[in-house]
Amino acid sequence: MKRIGILTSGGDSQGMNAAVRAIARSAMHAGLEAYGVNYGYKGLVEGDVFKMDSLNDLDGIINRGGTILRSARFPEFAEEETQLKAIEQLKKLGIDALVVIGGDGSYHGAMKLTKHGFNSIGVPGTIDNDIPGTDFTIGFDTAVGVATEALDRIIDTARSHQRIFVVEVMGRGAGDIALWSGISAGADAIVIPEREFDAKEIAAKLTDNKKRGKDYGIVVVAEGVMSAQELKDQIDQYGDFDSRAVTLAHVQRGGMPTAKDRVLASRFGDYAVQLLLEGKGGLAVGIRDNQLVAKDIIDTLENHKHKTDVSLADLNDRIRF
Amino acid sequence: MKRIGILTSGGDSQGMNAAVRAIARSAMHAGLEAYGVNYGYKGLVEGDVFKMDSLNDLDGIINRGGTILRSARFPEFAEEETQLKAIEQLKKLGIDALVVIGGDGSYHGAMKLTKHGFNSIGVPGTIDNDIPGTDFTIGFDTAVGVATEALDRIIDTARSHQRIFVVEVMGRGAGDIALWSGISAGADAIVIPEREFDAKEIAAKLTDNKKRGKDYGIVVVAEGVMSAQELKDQIDQYGDFDSRAVTLAHVQRGGMPTAKDRVLASRFGDYAVQLLLEGKGGLAVGIRDNQLVAKDIIDTLENHKHKTDVSLADLNDRIRF
Amino acid sequence: MKRIGILTSGGDSQGMNAAVRAIARSAMHAGLEAYGVNYGYKGLVEGDVFKMDSLNDLDGIINRGGTILRSARFPEFAEEETQLKAIEQLKKLGIDALVVIGGDGSYHGAMKLTKHGFNSIGVPGTIDNDIPGTDFTIGFDTAVGVATEALDRIIDTARSHQRIFVVEVMGRGAGDIALWSGISAGADAIVIPEREFDAKEIAAKLTDNKKRGKDYGIVVVAEGVMSAQELKDQIDQYGDFDSRAVTLAHVQRGGMPTAKDRVLASRFGDYAVQLLLEGKGGLAVGIRDNQLVAKDIIDTLENHKHKTDVSLADLNDRIRF
Amino acid sequence: MKRIGILTSGGDSQGMNAAVRAIARSAMHAGLEAYGVNYGYKGLVEGDVFKMDSLNDLDGIINRGGTILRSARFPEFAEEETQLKAIEQLKKLGIDALVVIGGDGSYHGAMKLTKHGFNSIGVPGTIDNDIPGTDFTIGFDTAVGVATEALDRIIDTARSHQRIFVVEVMGRGAGDIALWSGISAGADAIVIPEREFDAKEIAAKLTDNKKRGKDYGIVVVAEGVMSAQELKDQIDQYGDFDSRAVTLAHVQRGGMPTAKDRVLASRFGDYAVQLLLEGKGGLAVGIRDNQLVAKDIIDTLENHKHKTDVSLADLNDRIRF
Repeated sequence: MKRIGILTSGGDSQGMNAAVRAIARSAMHAGLEAYGVNYGYKGLVEGDVFKMDSLNDLDGIINRGGTILRSARFPEFAEEETQLKAIEQLKKLGIDALVVIGGDGSYHGAMKLTKHGFNSIGVPGTIDNDIPGTDFTIGFDTAVGVATEALDRIIDTARSHQRIFVVEVMGRGAGDIALWSGISAGADAIVIPEREFDAKEIAAKLTDNKKRGKDYGIVVVAEGVMSAQELKDQIDQYGDFDSRAVTLAHVQRGGMPTAKDRVLASRFGDYAVQLLLEGKGGLAVGIRDNQLVAKDIIDTLENHKHKTDVSLADLNDRIRF
Repeated sequence: MKRIGILTSGGDSQGMNAAVRAIARSAMHAGLEAYGVNYGYKGLVEGDVFKMDSLNDLDGIINRGGTILRSARFPEFAEEETQLKAIEQLKKLGIDALVVIGGDGSYHGAMKLTKHGFNSIGVPGTIDNDIPGTDFTIGFDTAVGVATEALDRIIDTARSHQRIFVVEVMGRGAGDIALWSGISAGADAIVIPEREFDAKEIAAKLTDNKKRGKDYGIVVVAEGVMSAQELKDQIDQYGDFDSRAVTLAHVQRGGMPTAKDRVLASRFGDYAVQLLLEGKGGLAVGIRDNQLVAKDIIDTLENHKHKTDVSLADLNDRIRF
Repeated sequence: MKRIGILTSGGDSQGMNAAVRAIARSAMHAGLEAYGVNYGYKGLVEGDVFKMDSLNDLDGIINRGGTILRSARFPEFAEEETQLKAIEQLKKLGIDALVVIGGDGSYHGAMKLTKHGFNSIGVPGTIDNDIPGTDFTIGFDTAVGVATEALDRIIDTARSHQRIFVVEVMGRGAGDIALWSGISAGADAIVIPEREFDAKEIAAKLTDNKKRGKDYGIVVVAEGVMSAQELKDQIDQYGDFDSRAVTLAHVQRGGMPTAKDRVLASRFGDYAVQLLLEGKGGLAVGIRDNQLVAKDIIDTLENHKHKTDVSLADLNDRIRF
Repeated sequence: MKRIGILTSGGDSQGMNAAVRAIARSAMHAGLEAYGVNYGYKGLVEGDVFKMDSLNDLDGIINRGGTILRSARFPEFAEEETQLKAIEQLKKLGIDALVVIGGDGSYHGAMKLTKHGFNSIGVPGTIDNDIPGTDFTIGFDTAVGVATEALDRIIDTARSHQRIFVVEVMGRGAGDIALWSGISAGADAIVIPEREFDAKEIAAKLTDNKKRGKDYGIVVVAEGVMSAQELKDQIDQYGDFDSRAVTLAHVQRGGMPTAKDRVLASRFGDYAVQLLLEGKGGLAVGIRDNQLVAKDIIDTLENHKHKTDVSLADLNDRIRF
């Protein structure tokens, strides 16, 4: 093996650059060359690829949000013809293996390349934490931090004005961001796709809080359940609240990654290279029970699903006001 | 003079607590007692007032968002009868003067009390920077900082995905937050109520940027003009963009005040007390050309308007890409 | 069981208040009363204990640094007589069990009470991450974040001025903060107590970096090895550097806890209560391989030691410039 | 005029890059070319100069700490021969005017070039706020923010452990950073070069605080007075304190500039270009009483001194505990 390609795909998440850096540097450390692919699978097919330089391309990127390799939508990659074209490009450049950082769309691409015989490894990068085969994804910790900081701010206003804020956080189909940021902010209720909820009960809880002296409140809702506005409207039916709906939106995706995400990305990236050096491929890298793991990427995608730790919702029920 | 009352009213802004602390401490330093009024003018009329203690009420609040005195809507204060009732309460408690921290609704209350012969001083506290008689209000710097940080984050995603983001910031009828955060984030266009704009021109600028190599962009729009979604729809008519609309909303109001807001609030609060000690009242405190000033509150409200520095919009036109 | 006591002891760490809140709220949720002990073991012996109120004592503390229960040095607690006096106080107040949040000094106290037959549970709270029986302690993630942010700042100056900065971070005898913050900041060298180092090699690396184009550098050193100044002096002997020594000091202990620390503290606190409700005691709570665990506190302290993950140092060697 | 050169010199400060961007972009907007000078006056003499590109050199730098143009010590520039060599280089490249961002060392260089007939303009960039001719310098607001955040953190520990912290902040000979951060953090005493102080009085104040119930404290000292350790030792002579000395050091110089510094830098940079376009030169740019001003650089340096607003120290005496 002489050359490793690196590609980011799907939604950006904080820490992707730290992963790019770790993959490229670790490859160079082992005597290999690292090639960056611009604009995801689209750039791969178009041959938008460049040899990475440790100083000019990688120095100072560990703490930058977004991805220096850019990302792009490319539904055409679902077609076999396009996939084969990508492999052609890789072979033309003498690239022997590809590490793909992204969410499950990105993994599917890596799986397809692997099925066609081209060694690819998936590194989980998404704020949503919804990738099978890992307890945590790159960007999740930062997104939770951003959401928590926003909730902290909103609580100041809620308390000052005796208001209820219903705040929608990201997470696609998963409730992880809602759970972690909701607990961190001391939310009065956390509504996630993985657990039943009842707007009437939430309203009753908020009304009860008021009677006991806490005249403001925060409800965190995962975007996978419904919008903040819809939930607010439901809750308003069961009580007399001065309530507001807020959607945190894209601020959750960007900005400097936390130290935890930088370390996780560094570990994942380096580990992917070590696996390739051992002649392994077709794997999805992850962290399970605090240990680095690598599982068959095809099996991971086809037979496993991310499990949100719903016990955290029960925990919050015990420690909220 | 023996006792000074302190009241916060209207929307909360970061640094209000620093002002409360400065007023109370400065009063105590001069041998006076400080009384906190809870829930704004509503609490005033209801007599929800307490004697402040320097340690238990004021220690550690300088960096807290929101207002420890709470705020509340109270349209009834427009009626003379209610105003007189407030003065009755103040007299009953032996309070000789009132310092009110808030926006122009709050100032109107202070003006009314002054007209009825009760010495009141207004301290400008609002994130919107839209109070006449001062170049800067308490909370503006922090709100600009929060908006800028959010824009910094959004730019990471915009750049990674070659997108245009239209981001709506607060400011009520004023473009100040949009201008300052827009310049700080290097926005491609800033749309404010104080200057004409043309969605077609913005689209042309963004298209031109793309041709010159910058394939992403940020447009900041003040809420006083239109919503992010509306502006996005307008811009989309004149170009082929992968665009998104984002509303920053209530995160701009809360959180720790910046050092600048803490110092400004401390200066305003102390200055209000010094004026009262000199026997003055019926004033609106402010900072003009970097000097503390105090003007007649009635004249300030009736004959002056806040002026946004529109030259900053022209500046941005010269230094954007 | 009717009453649970809560105590913080030793150096403060961010997230201690989140743990206090979780213990107290979870106890209340189970129908118990929660009692706060002020000033650690000192306050315990003196009977400085108060019944906690969910609204007035616990609302809004989840994101505060330090500990609302205060801490204090109290070497006298090593004496059996003093320990028995503490138990007497607890019995007088009808407190049935005690949860202690702190580092290993605090654990020793809890162990002693347990040995005397009073059910005590230890919750690991320290920035140093050096408690046996857990992979992570409350405050570690925040301290790493603070150190990383400081390093990010220092790098700006290092790069602008072509300088080498030797930066000392906390951690007592452990290298964990140095490792995590060093990786996060992309340090050129990380010096920890758990791994041999050679100042000459570090100097050679920095000189080699310069030849390859990187004319600045960061060396992170754990306080357990030596001071920044000492290491700087050693490195300076082997090369011609414009170098500076910086000690980050106490900023690492305070400030808002990260979301990760808030969730960890919430989980630990609630778990301690659940264990007590099951009639268990004499335990040290922890997280191992991402699972909550509770081990015999005596065995934990007497037979186990914290293990720093030295493989992270090797990782950094592969991914630095 | 066709070409403008840009140079940063002396200690780096946050916002320098925003100034570089504004100068270059504003010049380009006016149809001029912008040339970046690397490594300050050293690079100027050596001809280390490059034509700046709006996309590749300036995009995304507005929020970066440090200076992309680097800085370097160069005492040789005090010699006339060297100065003339610099002008020779500038003429060779066809550069018609130079904008220098930095502290007073940098200004002296610009003054010398001006005296030799080469049009130069100084833009005040230093965290110390000690440049004559301006109320605020680029970087001061950010440095105050960093120091304040550090003090906020330290207070958590001080309060938890009933300690006194003596904290040394930067500022060279000026007390501005100490004053602003000290007020922002609610310091019990602020020691600056511009006002007499008495360690005995500070100790008495801290002892009195304790009696009144506040059993912790923060003393902020400007580096221009003495070190934290020295002041701590002095204070310790007059009371029984559990005190610590902390030096904040280089963290104050780096990191993302605040919005205020970005706007100030943008205004200064653009203004310098406007002046050059009007055929003016030999000026020092500043902001006085909230208005942009430009004064003769020779007169500014030779006949004026920065004035710290000592009234802020008196203010703090009135509003501290």
